[in-house]
Amino acid sequence: MARVVVDVMPKAEILDPQGQAIVGALPRLGFAGISDVRQGKRFELEVGDDVDDATLESIAETFLANTVIEEWKVTRL
Amino acid sequence: MARVVVDVMPKAEILDPQGQAIVGALPRLGFAGISDVRQGKRFELEVGDDVDDATLESIAETFLANTVIEEWKVTRL
Repeated sequence: MARVVVDVMPKAEILDPQGQAIVGALPRLGFAGISDVRQGKRFELEVGDDVDDATLESIAETFLANTVIEEWKVTRL
Repeated sequence: MARVVVDVMPKAEILDPQGQAIVGALPRLGFAGISDVRQGKRFELEVGDDVDDATLESIAETFLANTVIEEWKVTRL
């Protein structure tokens, strides 16, 4: 068994309204100095030892990320 | 300017229906060997150099995570 993390983030050129809402709210809550926030998703997978990296990339690309608007990164812990 | 990542994941004892939906769907899509998936959130913050770790922990705890059901981790990149 191995633990794998897939991070999925909106591409840089894509508007991120959730992140912008957070940036806008932080000063009102008394937190200064945060100039940008992007919100994405994090998946933690428990995978068998026979699952290779190509399969994990395929899962991330075809299933976990929307490749039109999101970029993703697969990391084995 | 520094880049900070805040990972927010459902606590281990909390049901994660989104993750369970993914685990259930993967075999039907031809991907075997994934025994568990948990879905959480990832925030990427651009913070000024004068923002200290205590402030970042406070932002994560009070604003980005629901501490009743989620755990969080702050990482400076």
